[in-house]
Amino acid sequence: MKAFEKNIRKVEPYVPGEQPQRKVIKLNTNENPYPPAPGVAKALKGMETDRLRLYPDPAATPLVEELARFYQVQPDQVFVGVGSDDVLSMCFLTFFNSKKPLLFPDVTYSFYKVWAKLYRIPYECQELDEDFHIVKEDYYKENGGVIFPNPNAPTAIYEELDVVEDIIAHNQDVIVIVDEAYIDFAGRSALELIDKYENLLVVQTFSKARSMAGMRIGYAIGNPVLIQYLNDAKYSFNSYTMNQTSLACGVEAVKDVRYFEEGIQKIIRTREWAKEELEKLGFKCLESQANFIFAMHPEYDAKEMFEALKANDIYVRYWGSKRIKQYMRITIGTREEMEALFAFLRKYMNK
Amino acid sequence: MKAFEKNIRKVEPYVPGEQPQRKVIKLNTNENPYPPAPGVAKALKGMETDRLRLYPDPAATPLVEELARFYQVQPDQVFVGVGSDDVLSMCFLTFFNSKKPLLFPDVTYSFYKVWAKLYRIPYECQELDEDFHIVKEDYYKENGGVIFPNPNAPTAIYEELDVVEDIIAHNQDVIVIVDEAYIDFAGRSALELIDKYENLLVVQTFSKARSMAGMRIGYAIGNPVLIQYLNDAKYSFNSYTMNQTSLACGVEAVKDVRYFEEGIQKIIRTREWAKEELEKLGFKCLESQANFIFAMHPEYDAKEMFEALKANDIYVRYWGSKRIKQYMRITIGTREEMEALFAFLRKYMNK
Repeated sequence: MKAFEKNIRKVEPYVPGEQPQRKVIKLNTNENPYPPAPGVAKALKGMETDRLRLYPDPAATPLVEELARFYQVQPDQVFVGVGSDDVLSMCFLTFFNSKKPLLFPDVTYSFYKVWAKLYRIPYECQELDEDFHIVKEDYYKENGGVIFPNPNAPTAIYEELDVVEDIIAHNQDVIVIVDEAYIDFAGRSALELIDKYENLLVVQTFSKARSMAGMRIGYAIGNPVLIQYLNDAKYSFNSYTMNQTSLACGVEAVKDVRYFEEGIQKIIRTREWAKEELEKLGFKCLESQANFIFAMHPEYDAKEMFEALKANDIYVRYWGSKRIKQYMRITIGTREEMEALFAFLRKYMNK
Repeated sequence: MKAFEKNIRKVEPYVPGEQPQRKVIKLNTNENPYPPAPGVAKALKGMETDRLRLYPDPAATPLVEELARFYQVQPDQVFVGVGSDDVLSMCFLTFFNSKKPLLFPDVTYSFYKVWAKLYRIPYECQELDEDFHIVKEDYYKENGGVIFPNPNAPTAIYEELDVVEDIIAHNQDVIVIVDEAYIDFAGRSALELIDKYENLLVVQTFSKARSMAGMRIGYAIGNPVLIQYLNDAKYSFNSYTMNQTSLACGVEAVKDVRYFEEGIQKIIRTREWAKEELEKLGFKCLESQANFIFAMHPEYDAKEMFEALKANDIYVRYWGSKRIKQYMRITIGTREEMEALFAFLRKYMNK
């Protein structure tokens, strides 16, 4: 190692799901199979491009205000960032500065460990039970903060709001973050609790139900004190994170409530049908409440199946880590994409 | 303070220049008065918006490759981020983990102190000489890293490449970052030195000469080892920082070499003329090599003048901090905008 490398922060980065350049059936990164709201395309075509020479509004005011309107909160309760990963990363940097460990589930979004390591935050994983549910009592111990996704990833399992509230109620001296990337496909959101618990922050994204992974927009909603701390950190990191197109397109996506709700119902219908189809093929699916299914087959090796699918241009996600070695995560695509998946699986299993 | 606030990182954020919503003569944040290259508007109008549902390429390949072509380096020597502030912030997080102080000038880009405080990096400011030039010998002492802008901000003063190289040569055991946001309006870039010094990183932006502050694109160029460390940190922070529109527009901006070069010449011509006009009015201007002028008037109080300008919808930048209390920073606008500024100043001074 050269002398100048001595003071460099060395990290083992998160490995995102593949983004193949050629056309494949892409069920590997939980994207939405449908395009964003029509207003988004219109906003982009109608952009006053001469204004791109100017910095965007650092407070992202139009987007913050539109989100506040939609969720019936005040603008000072909303923070926006470059995808929910940016928002969550800022949260780790801002809120988890304790010497006590941050708590999160053992099977969960793999980025949590990466952020903890990046910022040198001590952490301790809590084992999910054998059905992959959170054991709420595991979060009663002393800690420096709590974070979990609901529905969880990659299991797609949703915890009822009383479980979520119980964990928040037991941790009012630290920040509790509920990471709700997939909540629109599930049940009640922890947003119902933000006025009751000052230490609660709910993080959501435009990448899933709003079909805008390519625009990178995420947000956090919570009490104004937390949002202020987050904004202070953001303004210390980069004043202008949201570019002009994200602001313009984001506003349009939030405005179109009907398109948003109909899109969610379409995916839920495909998901329920896909679960039945997988079960007919002998798969066991966890109780999915997201836009993906976490499934295993008692008779077929998951890794081999994953590779056979990939060789046939059908991409799903496989980790191979402890406890989930036998599982594949399958994003809900269009009905046609799911048909192609099932057709391949039937052939693979000679059924 | 509530218990849950105890472990929150508290920072004093950078205060960006105002972004007034109504129409004013905006000479306060060093934006380009001309629109981006025509290809940028075309790229935006032609976006395949259905694809916005998909994550962007995390490696930002088309943009990295286009920049590599333009600067005649290899793609693995290029890192891109959400504006040069994002790139610089990642650099601070990645490269400056020493217990020894980071060195930078006392009068410089005010974000350096903010990042150092955010990441708890010790730092020590080195005084510029009385003409606001860097004293290279001040950077011979032991340190944990070196950063300076060239041309410097807010002074607009450019250091010749031999001064820059001398500082790099004396600091080969740490990372040296030359922050070249304004280099296109000045002289030779430190890019000439990246193959000679493995510890050198040159950071540039699309916000100035490329007229794209609103799109948030910045980049660093250096040896592949440094770029790899930066990418590891970026992938640990947020895998997908550059949205699809930034990638598409960025490529088009780089491709149009002629538009880029002509735009620079237009601004340089306006700058040289504006300097003469200011001097006719009794101002003293530092030797500007950027798209702005740092000027003071021996007979008029800078703060009062700044406020009078603002009251008349002409925005320039004023800090009021030590050593630069008597200076205003004036961005080079169009010739018409500069005429309006001079007309006001003549009236203000009864000339």
